[in-house]
Amino acid sequence: MRHDQIREGRLSGNRNAFIARYLSSMDADRRIASPDLRVDMAHLAMLKQQGLIPAEHAKLLAGALLRMYTDGIPGEAYDERFEDIHAGIEGELIAEAGIDAGGRLHLARSRNDEVATCLRIRVREDILEILGSVSSLRKILIDLADGHAKTVMPGFTHLQHAQPTTLAHHLLAYEEAFSRDAERLFDTYTRVNRSPLGSAAFASTGFPIDREMTRRLLGFDCILGNSMDAVSGRDFALEVLSALTIMMANASRLCEELILWSSAFVGFVELDDIYCSTSSIMPQKKNPDCAEIMRGHAGTVAGAFQSALICMKGLPMSYNRDLQTLTPHLWNGISHTAASMEILAGMVQTAVFDKEKMYRESERGFSTATELADTLVRDFGLPFRTAHNIVGRAVRSGEITLSTIEEAGKEIAGISLKERGLTEDRIRKALDPTLVVAAKRVAGGPAEEAIVYAIRLRSGLLKKHNEMITMRKNATKDAEEELIQMIKGLTEA
Amino acid sequence: MRHDQIREGRLSGNRNAFIARYLSSMDADRRIASPDLRVDMAHLAMLKQQGLIPAEHAKLLAGALLRMYTDGIPGEAYDERFEDIHAGIEGELIAEAGIDAGGRLHLARSRNDEVATCLRIRVREDILEILGSVSSLRKILIDLADGHAKTVMPGFTHLQHAQPTTLAHHLLAYEEAFSRDAERLFDTYTRVNRSPLGSAAFASTGFPIDREMTRRLLGFDCILGNSMDAVSGRDFALEVLSALTIMMANASRLCEELILWSSAFVGFVELDDIYCSTSSIMPQKKNPDCAEIMRGHAGTVAGAFQSALICMKGLPMSYNRDLQTLTPHLWNGISHTAASMEILAGMVQTAVFDKEKMYRESERGFSTATELADTLVRDFGLPFRTAHNIVGRAVRSGEITLSTIEEAGKEIAGISLKERGLTEDRIRKALDPTLVVAAKRVAGGPAEEAIVYAIRLRSGLLKKHNEMITMRKNATKDAEEELIQMIKGLTEA
Amino acid sequence: MRHDQIREGRLSGNRNAFIARYLSSMDADRRIASPDLRVDMAHLAMLKQQGLIPAEHAKLLAGALLRMYTDGIPGEAYDERFEDIHAGIEGELIAEAGIDAGGRLHLARSRNDEVATCLRIRVREDILEILGSVSSLRKILIDLADGHAKTVMPGFTHLQHAQPTTLAHHLLAYEEAFSRDAERLFDTYTRVNRSPLGSAAFASTGFPIDREMTRRLLGFDCILGNSMDAVSGRDFALEVLSALTIMMANASRLCEELILWSSAFVGFVELDDIYCSTSSIMPQKKNPDCAEIMRGHAGTVAGAFQSALICMKGLPMSYNRDLQTLTPHLWNGISHTAASMEILAGMVQTAVFDKEKMYRESERGFSTATELADTLVRDFGLPFRTAHNIVGRAVRSGEITLSTIEEAGKEIAGISLKERGLTEDRIRKALDPTLVVAAKRVAGGPAEEAIVYAIRLRSGLLKKHNEMITMRKNATKDAEEELIQMIKGLTEA
Amino acid sequence: MRHDQIREGRLSGNRNAFIARYLSSMDADRRIASPDLRVDMAHLAMLKQQGLIPAEHAKLLAGALLRMYTDGIPGEAYDERFEDIHAGIEGELIAEAGIDAGGRLHLARSRNDEVATCLRIRVREDILEILGSVSSLRKILIDLADGHAKTVMPGFTHLQHAQPTTLAHHLLAYEEAFSRDAERLFDTYTRVNRSPLGSAAFASTGFPIDREMTRRLLGFDCILGNSMDAVSGRDFALEVLSALTIMMANASRLCEELILWSSAFVGFVELDDIYCSTSSIMPQKKNPDCAEIMRGHAGTVAGAFQSALICMKGLPMSYNRDLQTLTPHLWNGISHTAASMEILAGMVQTAVFDKEKMYRESERGFSTATELADTLVRDFGLPFRTAHNIVGRAVRSGEITLSTIEEAGKEIAGISLKERGLTEDRIRKALDPTLVVAAKRVAGGPAEEAIVYAIRLRSGLLKKHNEMITMRKNATKDAEEELIQMIKGLTEA
Repeated sequence: MRHDQIREGRLSGNRNAFIARYLSSMDADRRIASPDLRVDMAHLAMLKQQGLIPAEHAKLLAGALLRMYTDGIPGEAYDERFEDIHAGIEGELIAEAGIDAGGRLHLARSRNDEVATCLRIRVREDILEILGSVSSLRKILIDLADGHAKTVMPGFTHLQHAQPTTLAHHLLAYEEAFSRDAERLFDTYTRVNRSPLGSAAFASTGFPIDREMTRRLLGFDCILGNSMDAVSGRDFALEVLSALTIMMANASRLCEELILWSSAFVGFVELDDIYCSTSSIMPQKKNPDCAEIMRGHAGTVAGAFQSALICMKGLPMSYNRDLQTLTPHLWNGISHTAASMEILAGMVQTAVFDKEKMYRESERGFSTATELADTLVRDFGLPFRTAHNIVGRAVRSGEITLSTIEEAGKEIAGISLKERGLTEDRIRKALDPTLVVAAKRVAGGPAEEAIVYAIRLRSGLLKKHNEMITMRKNATKDAEEELIQMIKGLTEA
Repeated sequence: MRHDQIREGRLSGNRNAFIARYLSSMDADRRIASPDLRVDMAHLAMLKQQGLIPAEHAKLLAGALLRMYTDGIPGEAYDERFEDIHAGIEGELIAEAGIDAGGRLHLARSRNDEVATCLRIRVREDILEILGSVSSLRKILIDLADGHAKTVMPGFTHLQHAQPTTLAHHLLAYEEAFSRDAERLFDTYTRVNRSPLGSAAFASTGFPIDREMTRRLLGFDCILGNSMDAVSGRDFALEVLSALTIMMANASRLCEELILWSSAFVGFVELDDIYCSTSSIMPQKKNPDCAEIMRGHAGTVAGAFQSALICMKGLPMSYNRDLQTLTPHLWNGISHTAASMEILAGMVQTAVFDKEKMYRESERGFSTATELADTLVRDFGLPFRTAHNIVGRAVRSGEITLSTIEEAGKEIAGISLKERGLTEDRIRKALDPTLVVAAKRVAGGPAEEAIVYAIRLRSGLLKKHNEMITMRKNATKDAEEELIQMIKGLTEA
Repeated sequence: MRHDQIREGRLSGNRNAFIARYLSSMDADRRIASPDLRVDMAHLAMLKQQGLIPAEHAKLLAGALLRMYTDGIPGEAYDERFEDIHAGIEGELIAEAGIDAGGRLHLARSRNDEVATCLRIRVREDILEILGSVSSLRKILIDLADGHAKTVMPGFTHLQHAQPTTLAHHLLAYEEAFSRDAERLFDTYTRVNRSPLGSAAFASTGFPIDREMTRRLLGFDCILGNSMDAVSGRDFALEVLSALTIMMANASRLCEELILWSSAFVGFVELDDIYCSTSSIMPQKKNPDCAEIMRGHAGTVAGAFQSALICMKGLPMSYNRDLQTLTPHLWNGISHTAASMEILAGMVQTAVFDKEKMYRESERGFSTATELADTLVRDFGLPFRTAHNIVGRAVRSGEITLSTIEEAGKEIAGISLKERGLTEDRIRKALDPTLVVAAKRVAGGPAEEAIVYAIRLRSGLLKKHNEMITMRKNATKDAEEELIQMIKGLTEA
Repeated sequence: MRHDQIREGRLSGNRNAFIARYLSSMDADRRIASPDLRVDMAHLAMLKQQGLIPAEHAKLLAGALLRMYTDGIPGEAYDERFEDIHAGIEGELIAEAGIDAGGRLHLARSRNDEVATCLRIRVREDILEILGSVSSLRKILIDLADGHAKTVMPGFTHLQHAQPTTLAHHLLAYEEAFSRDAERLFDTYTRVNRSPLGSAAFASTGFPIDREMTRRLLGFDCILGNSMDAVSGRDFALEVLSALTIMMANASRLCEELILWSSAFVGFVELDDIYCSTSSIMPQKKNPDCAEIMRGHAGTVAGAFQSALICMKGLPMSYNRDLQTLTPHLWNGISHTAASMEILAGMVQTAVFDKEKMYRESERGFSTATELADTLVRDFGLPFRTAHNIVGRAVRSGEITLSTIEEAGKEIAGISLKERGLTEDRIRKALDPTLVVAAKRVAGGPAEEAIVYAIRLRSGLLKKHNEMITMRKNATKDAEEELIQMIKGLTEA
């Protein structure tokens, strides 16, 4: 391989492969190789415009960069004996365009601002990809809810049958949680998409560069206002990881439920075989493996955040090499979340729900007892707390009937509910899950009309979010096209 | 104390004090006692308007609530034998207004939506308070920068003297980091300030309540759209804690520097005595204790986030009691951050900087060598990488002089820089920190004119942020006033 | 209150209450007030023996310390305007014995070694207390297993019915996990119980102290060998927290199962009412609240470890004030674990298992299919993988009968199992849970004889652990008695 | 590639590559491929001895396993379309030995006990390797201390010059910390080195296997006593990761100091060039990159622990697929720690210390003021607290001279120290660092004789630790040799 052109001036001694590997970020740099090319191009175009590089050198470099952009970066640039991809690509440029031209591109910048710029370019792409998956998942949840607006099921608190609800209501709870996860990523995007380029090592440069021009060519919304902060801050990475951690926690909750619901005990759902495995020893098993692995990866992403935080937390200004170890945590968090959200969308979409089992369970476990207590309040004028205690006492007796309620009423409040007009039929109605659910028409509730209203609202928000994704994608694509045209122009000069 | 009115219907057995304490959230509930009163009032006003509570009961309850609002909640309500503050206040109401009235307030709601509402009210107040402290800190940093626009100091990378910069530049790096911390809290505020009230246990209620009315009276921006999500989601708490974690990481970095800078080695700053301690055994010591404790609390807040995340991550829908253990982590994170930001503002404001020491150090450690390499590029046409290697070689020889540079030029590139016109004087100028800094006029750089420009920009943004804080504060204050008027109206009915 | 006698020499300025509170560790110091007295006494006895304190001063101090030991430390010592309890108690001593005597006790030591010694004394007591609770829990699990050696139940993998097992087997799995948790705490104890006293600020002292004597009087196993490490290391605290974190993770798993098992779906267990709560709105609910809160506190303890780690990780030698913020995390982790283990023991002991429901479920979900595959191997000579696939194919058909197995045998392996002698009766036997379990007599298996053997083994290990606890408790008690006698001797001199 | 022989019986549907990759553990399984072969061999030998496999099948399998053991596992076994390496190797065996033989090896076991066994074999090897590196590092620290027993340097608290000490004392502080890290790993080893083999899926097996035989052949100390616990517990992994986390926190502290000490401000140490990098833009820079990266990886390992904990914490019994995601965190923690400890040993060994600079700094910052206060106590009978305040007051005046001390004595205590015999010379002696250090002969102190004593002690402990490592290595090597002989015997049968 080529030698390391950066190191040779200052340091003596030959490093062995073990130390070189310890120091190298090459493995994690694969994800920023393509962004690095664009950063090189934008920097070159700017140097040329500002008269900081001779035309013939610019032409040579533009040609070499364009070739790599079109044909791919040669494998040699990834050799682990380069400390990082920036050195690898610079090595290629020097090999292609000669040291006289190749050695000029690093003028008025440093790897510190270069890597920060590359990270931000890649992360914004990753965010938009994940947002796309989240949108797909939300669409699936909304569509499912649309088909299950009347599917009665038990709702749970403390994993106990609590009150009847609808499957639509349950699914929309997740849709709303994921929509906040999306909001967080949108918010984060605005802080990611700021340009550090031109900050050089941390103190900017004495050369008359044009940071606004490179910002535009790289599709950033604005420049980071302080060059020291620009190279040493990684709160954008922490913020992305924390948003992903929270998103994965929500995904993990849904997986937890899919696992519970596909157990033999519950039997609410059957997951598609392609998301499941069997046992190597128990031939009857069908295990919800994808859901379990996703639940596990919620921990992976949370740990990545924690690692990145610990890394940044202790550092004085400005750039410190510790930051190199932060990057793999960022990729780790992003790649596991991206894969998980895509898997989750497919797993939910192909799941088959057992509506009869759900209905049957909604009648069980006294889950409509609250409604009976409400009835005692509404129709018989009892204070809520008294009604609650009467029904609770009847439950403790093992069944809710006119006689157990009557007895409890006497014991707790010294009144006869029968005398006030309570009948067996009135009780039966109060305990019918379908009727109970139908009464909950309040905004956000499980009744069909509340669900229909919610679906309209949620679809509208999802549409808006999808437009935001598209707008951002187009903005970066347009910038990239302008950049390529400009570089082509340089090759033809 | 009064007995626990919630428990008695359903469960038998007398719980011992140890178990009661294990289950009680009373300790953490002190922070939501006052919000809980407002929630009770808004719920009462709504029940009354909807005809869900008789006028005489409403009057009794309004009077009792108003007394607690004015005179404070009696100590008895905080007794640990109540499971939580909601039970404690309900106990007070029943004692004051009788079971017939007091037992009616819990109609059409549950502790699940009640506690979620209280948390959000308190958290939004806490966020605004912290934002106020961050603004103070940023103002101090900007003002200090204004006074130190020409204070030359060394900048560091890898804790090594790297290039000269200005103290203003260094301080503004932190101001920009803290401004992003503020942005994150503003973003979070929009997701915190949504009303869960009316979700009841998770399935909303069959009573015709008006969620929009309680939303308005409690100053929320909108309602949470799904009642199951509303009571079981705590991602707003995770989000707040993650924003505070990142903020504290930035604060910790600044503290790390204040500690380094106030060491005898560096001597850039002297912290005010009131933020320091001496030793119990070493009489000469003056220790930067506040900065150290703050550095430590960055870990406290990060751990609080982690605890809260682990708690929420494993939970199926909907409410589970685990969520009770999440709340103290939220308070822990908030209170340590709030105190830290206030301390930090004072510590920075009273710090005394040693400008002479800073200047002296900026001349040291070859920290202007980059500028010399740049000079070789600019004035003598060398490729950057070649110039970098020449200067690096000279540094390795121990000093930068015309002769060491000349020798390095011959060795590395086979050229005589003397012949090209390099002189001792040209080298001296390139190495003068003041001149080097003055050349860095690029946006975001350390030169005086870049600083002046940055200060104008940053002050503008800070002003906007302060207006946002005021606007939010006024909105909640106005809502509270409307609420109190309405409750007063009920007492006079 | 008294003034702060430590601060006055070196520092000017009056600190306001806010800063004082920020710096104070008083709140967390309550737990080390009593150990601090013992440290004072041991130090005093040693100073006296070494001739480093005049007899009359020693007498005065011994008297004052003994009074506090007997009557309790006066509330004034806990005033938050003292930085810590050490200053508080020193203040008391000076008030009681005069500055001339009281000011001498801090000779040849520092708060740095003092606090490290106090922490270790308290932590070792806490460890032994927790170990006691773990032993109780293990005893309960073993006793329950003894009563359920023949209680057949389904075992689960992936939350799917997998193979039949016994309740004894299931309970002993937890007993073994908790026994490792105990082993870890025993291991940790040996590193906690080392004496830092005599290290002073970090460089020891020029006075001829006797570290061996104070070690003995305070019941430590040995002294820490390096005075700098002794005051600045907190890996003992991290180690304790990590052991507790793992213990709580095991406790959380057991709670997870108790919650699942007490759900209406599973119904394997009914928890005692005193560990449960009802709902404020749903009168029929009986929620496993203690188990949920414990599951939540597994996160609390894990976060405490993380906070403590982040704190220590960044610190250079030797003592830094950050360490003060580590202590509350230690107490937090310890107190939540101690309470949880005690609650867990009671919750398991009072749980009522539904043996019939368990048996019924063990017949379900093809959970004995593995045994059928094993039968095909054992009695019909099939390779395991082939047998596994044949049974799996039959399961996919919906039922296991002679005809579905026969069909699958032909399809997968081209053989007729009927012809080889397979009968309906042979299949029925292979699928009988009781017979299947009875066959698993391997060490560690669920058959009755394996359980009986395991119980003997586990009881033996538990007995050994209990002896270790008692031995350690006695050793520290004996040391304390010797210390008090010695101090009494000083008062009578 | 070969098809997945495990899946085909039970599940329909063809999984796409994306889902297959999501489910595959192949990447992380590379580290257990070699252990898996040994597990296969031990299982085979046992099946043969127990008469559970026909001799001709055993012979075929023994031959195939021995070939892979000798020639390496073919690349095909690692294909990502296998779910894991166990399936990959089984696929190879079937290809080599035919389905009739190859399909029999999985008899009486499951991947659940297989993978747990493989993990423990690999982890115990990794532990011994890391322990070896820690021993090297400790040897280097002890040897350096031996050469610097008289090298006076300032010690620090709160990063302030505090009291003089010796470099030997400082280095031995780390040696002692690392020795505890080693102790923890030894303790952990005893819990790692237990055999889960024979537990099958979790309920053991009905076949008459011999767990004791496989235990012996695989070099385990004992068997895990409960088959359910054996396959579902991962506390051994958490324990290893927590021990490594604490070890890396100690390593990070040492790195923090190396970074500080090699800064231009401090200049105590020069690190060897091979552990450093230069800047891409600042030619004079020599950055302590390895130390910074190691500091960063302390966060990597801490996050790995956290991820693993979150994974295990939520799981009910017994095996759940989430556990698969835990394994990469284990490898991550192990590999970063292993590399770091090796790098750290080299970095410390090649570091060059500047003794003159150290001595010069030990005279600075009043760092011997404590000794002066001690002198006032010892020679002039003042109470310690009074002496401390007098010296502190003098320090505040800016210098310690006879006259400032005299004045402070009058002010604080109303006494004339001159009259009591204090002279300028007595003060000078008290402030001489060499004399101050020489006086600290207490056990654990920095004086030469204390150091010499400590080195003897520490070397003895290190020797004992090295013997423990060797003993454990030999035990596993002997077991492996016996195993191979036995398998060779089968091929020759």
